Amino acid sequence: MSDATEIRFSGFGGQGVILMGIALARAAALYDRPTDEDGKVVKKTAVQTQSYGPSARGGHSKCDVKISAKEMHYPFVEVPDYLIILSQQAYAKYIHDRKPETRIIIDPDLVRERPKGEVYMIPATASAEELGTRIVANVVMLGALREISQIVSHEALERALFETLPKVTHDLNRKALELGAKLGREALEAAGKG
Amino acid sequence: MSDATEIRFSGFGGQGVILMGIALARAAALYDRPTDEDGKVVKKTAVQTQSYGPSARGGHSKCDVKISAKEMHYPFVEVPDYLIILSQQAYAKYIHDRKPETRIIIDPDLVRERPKGEVYMIPATASAEELGTRIVANVVMLGALREISQIVSHEALERALFETLPKVTHDLNRKALELGAKLGREALEAAGKG
Repeated sequence: MSDATEIRFSGFGGQGVILMGIALARAAALYDRPTDEDGKVVKKTAVQTQSYGPSARGGHSKCDVKISAKEMHYPFVEVPDYLIILSQQAYAKYIHDRKPETRIIIDPDLVRERPKGEVYMIPATASAEELGTRIVANVVMLGALREISQIVSHEALERALFETLPKVTHDLNRKALELGAKLGREALEAAGKG
Repeated sequence: MSDATEIRFSGFGGQGVILMGIALARAAALYDRPTDEDGKVVKKTAVQTQSYGPSARGGHSKCDVKISAKEMHYPFVEVPDYLIILSQQAYAKYIHDRKPETRIIIDPDLVRERPKGEVYMIPATASAEELGTRIVANVVMLGALREISQIVSHEALERALFETLPKVTHDLNRKALELGAKLGREALEAAGKG
């Protein structure tokens, strides 16, 4: 059993899938300060990988992140603990790379199918539109993932996001992150885990 | 001997080191269409990796890209073929991960030392300032790397860059890329390879 937590973000080009991975990896490794039972800070390492090849030419996009308290020598994600899916095409491609415990987070407006298992429906795109622009759907989804997984603190994630986004967008992205957290809590409750 | 070409971009946070790696990887895998001696298109695969860990907390930034005509199973770059250095701190950290053939490309205004070997001096930051903003120093450097390495076509790189950058910045970035190509040609000439 690996000590690492593996996360796969998938969707189509232009949805900001890569940004999600970069922000999560930076939040975990650079800004999060979780403590163990003795109150000692646990320092984490994160690796973010993207592969581009013949398969990526179809227009879908994937970004993998692996987070661990130990050093990692094999950075590829093969069977993720969290699988985030933002398009039907990405669903078809990645849904089979899973284990029974994989938590699947999908945008139900962009993915037709409803997989079995531990599935969380997060209407990230529709919710982003309520904020005025679907461009922040990825940040809504990231907020939901954080709430469901508790992999990093909300503060660390916000800091990592703000660092990579222009200042004029911070207010909008703060709202998107908070809306995602709310959707995440509701999805946990709907799954009887709230 | 590996069939892959390995490139390491290094600098400090905020210089756009990650963008350089993403643009190069996407250009190589998605948009470049090189042909072999039979005129057949060679399809390439690219992997872009970033590791964040205790060392990254010091403020330096690194982005590795591996490009190959074959599938890759080990994505880490250990001894790059091209080492791009945009800060003195990155220099101190990465200059030793090299082989005799490694081509080193540095911004001489940001790196005090002058390494031995095949070294190209590209004043990317000062040149970007001539264009009005040092924010495009990374794109200048990318243009120089392309010229020196010929890893991808200018057109493929421009397309990959434009895809990830806001439209209002395309003109500026086109100029930055061309300026970098010019600096790359001059550096090749200075090295007697023009």
